[in-house]
Amino acid sequence: MNRRIRDRLMTADEAVKWVRPGKRVVASGFLHQPSRVLRALQALVDDGQLPPEPLTPFRNSFPRRSFTRKGPDVAILHAAAIFSDGFVPALAVEESPWLAANAHEIILEWNVNWPSSLIGVHDIYADTVVDDAHIVPLCQPADRIGTPYIPLDWTKVVGVVKVDDDLSFVSPIEESANESRMANHLHEFLLSELRKGLLPIDMPPIHAACTGETGAILRALTQSGQQRIALFTDIIDEVALDLLQSESLSVASGSTLAVTQATAGDLSRTLKQSENRLILRPRQTITAPDVLRRLGIISINTAQEVDLYGRAHLQSDRWDSANTGQDFARQSRLSIVLLPPAPPEAGVSRVVPRVAQADLSEREVDVIVSEHGIADLRGISAAKRAERIISGWAREPQQPDLAAMVFANRRK
Amino acid sequence: MNRRIRDRLMTADEAVKWVRPGKRVVASGFLHQPSRVLRALQALVDDGQLPPEPLTPFRNSFPRRSFTRKGPDVAILHAAAIFSDGFVPALAVEESPWLAANAHEIILEWNVNWPSSLIGVHDIYADTVVDDAHIVPLCQPADRIGTPYIPLDWTKVVGVVKVDDDLSFVSPIEESANESRMANHLHEFLLSELRKGLLPIDMPPIHAACTGETGAILRALTQSGQQRIALFTDIIDEVALDLLQSESLSVASGSTLAVTQATAGDLSRTLKQSENRLILRPRQTITAPDVLRRLGIISINTAQEVDLYGRAHLQSDRWDSANTGQDFARQSRLSIVLLPPAPPEAGVSRVVPRVAQADLSEREVDVIVSEHGIADLRGISAAKRAERIISGWAREPQQPDLAAMVFANRRK
Repeated sequence: MNRRIRDRLMTADEAVKWVRPGKRVVASGFLHQPSRVLRALQALVDDGQLPPEPLTPFRNSFPRRSFTRKGPDVAILHAAAIFSDGFVPALAVEESPWLAANAHEIILEWNVNWPSSLIGVHDIYADTVVDDAHIVPLCQPADRIGTPYIPLDWTKVVGVVKVDDDLSFVSPIEESANESRMANHLHEFLLSELRKGLLPIDMPPIHAACTGETGAILRALTQSGQQRIALFTDIIDEVALDLLQSESLSVASGSTLAVTQATAGDLSRTLKQSENRLILRPRQTITAPDVLRRLGIISINTAQEVDLYGRAHLQSDRWDSANTGQDFARQSRLSIVLLPPAPPEAGVSRVVPRVAQADLSEREVDVIVSEHGIADLRGISAAKRAERIISGWAREPQQPDLAAMVFANRRK
Repeated sequence: MNRRIRDRLMTADEAVKWVRPGKRVVASGFLHQPSRVLRALQALVDDGQLPPEPLTPFRNSFPRRSFTRKGPDVAILHAAAIFSDGFVPALAVEESPWLAANAHEIILEWNVNWPSSLIGVHDIYADTVVDDAHIVPLCQPADRIGTPYIPLDWTKVVGVVKVDDDLSFVSPIEESANESRMANHLHEFLLSELRKGLLPIDMPPIHAACTGETGAILRALTQSGQQRIALFTDIIDEVALDLLQSESLSVASGSTLAVTQATAGDLSRTLKQSENRLILRPRQTITAPDVLRRLGIISINTAQEVDLYGRAHLQSDRWDSANTGQDFARQSRLSIVLLPPAPPEAGVSRVVPRVAQADLSEREVDVIVSEHGIADLRGISAAKRAERIISGWAREPQQPDLAAMVFANRRK
């Protein structure tokens, strides 16, 4: 074992002694948290040695803006492997590279149970994590522009906590059934865009927010299409991994791979099979606005509700993808919002006069797809948008009231 | 006169004959509209020869996304001067370069009353107007990266309507008085950021949404500061022009110069004085996300209301700057929202439980400045944000109710 690592080995309880009251502490990822160290930290809180809520929240995809000092004081990060000049994050890169580069002190929790096939999956572009102001030289979803590990300044590493714990995985997401009508509408729409010359012959990379609906749509699109699709997204879920393995996806690039226990058993083989076609990057690279514009992505989000202005309240999945969903939608060449049918027993519509929370404004929604068809909202006035949304969902229970409301308010 | 121009000279009534029902027609800018041609177009509508609402609305700063065919059919554009290979827009560049590049047919309304000193004020970077996917090579607010005119493909120009009309200007904006407390708070805050090393020694370029408050703040900041400030913004108003002339601003770069009749009388001299320091660009260059990140701008918007989440409903000025205000805030290094005092007679607070319209989400607001002080919302939890907003405005009438609401809902 490298001496730098050996000299810093300690228990979780020893490591958290570096955290003094008043220090700003951050921890990596939602999926593979440094859980032993975090438990030790919580023990200090319970013991009254630290104030409650010891972790500082930060804005994902643009963490620099969350810090009122130069970076956090202590970063607690999960590692799958450690080398002399860096460490390999597990399946969730997210903001770890920025945190490692900007924290004053680093505690690494190193779980030795990760397969070595993880090495090489990551592409860490360091310039973006130090400062957002660089041009990120990424021109294709499969480009490799960085290192396969997160660089480490060892003078900042105060402790390495080596653990031999079970790996944690996500619970399976329920893939929606009966999305075939939405998928058909979307497929026809994309074909007509292609015929009009509004999409290039090679399908642009696709962002798909991680919901049961987008998974089903992605599956349907790759099956109906003639060509393979590149995925450029935040969280790569099991559906995407499955499509990648069956070569329906040419490449999948994201900041996190969310796998369940079922896939995890075979993780090593899966990673080897997807070699060079599965690339995990810092979330800052994935959501860099210039990269998204350059790639000319098509963004697919799933709405919980849309309103007559064309604004969308996004489905919040377990991973708060609504946050990065906005990054993708805003910079996309085409922003598509899926509106799944409301549960029939609810007797309500997902089309409302005004959404409670506009995750996407009317300027960030181009096209809404429901089982009833497409509402193309581009280049029309607000009044026409409302008309088109209503007429697109004639079978929705609330429809007559909405129509009455809009037309009553419309200027003559 | 150039033969290309002479061959195409016609009246407004002749020009609008190119507009057939069903064609998608767009017109340039809010400030210097091609008004003769638009009046002739409206006459056709009144006469029943064209359907109502003949103009297609488009999304500013990203117009490509508004068109469901390849660009508009007819673009009606205002010109201050016409050359053999292009035309000079008046004081509002906005989306005209994109419209000229992408329309199938172009009608130019050429008002001969603009001073020749307008020539050289513009910097039209053509790559961004054809496709947003390029890297815009702008590294400093004063950089010139394009041509001083909008390039023209003469095969698309179907008519030139030469007019000798009075120039149109904006009515003066009422500059808020008594902003000195807000300005002092903001100035102190920026100084403390500088001392902490969170701002570079050279003040970054500033975006200031065009309201009476930001004008007053800008004036105060340049007077209190030791150094000159660069303005990189959408609409440059008279305050900014004044500060530019007094050399308090080093440079002012925007997509539109909004001048009133008073300044207009002296427009020629004003433009000559500001030579090379006043630069009008396409709105797509001004709001290009990679440019804004690279410049590391400080964004200043003015809110009508903020809520306990830290979201802001922006003041809508005459020019709907709320739209581009979001572009700037989202990509800025520091997003500041001014919250002017509510009119005392209203007896209400501008701090509400939930804003009716969140122009800026909680992720796009870093710091709120009111006459009572600064609420720094970076890197704290939602509950702490609410506390800080409330305690920052202890003198607001609604304060006790808000506090009760927040603390009642807070988890133990």
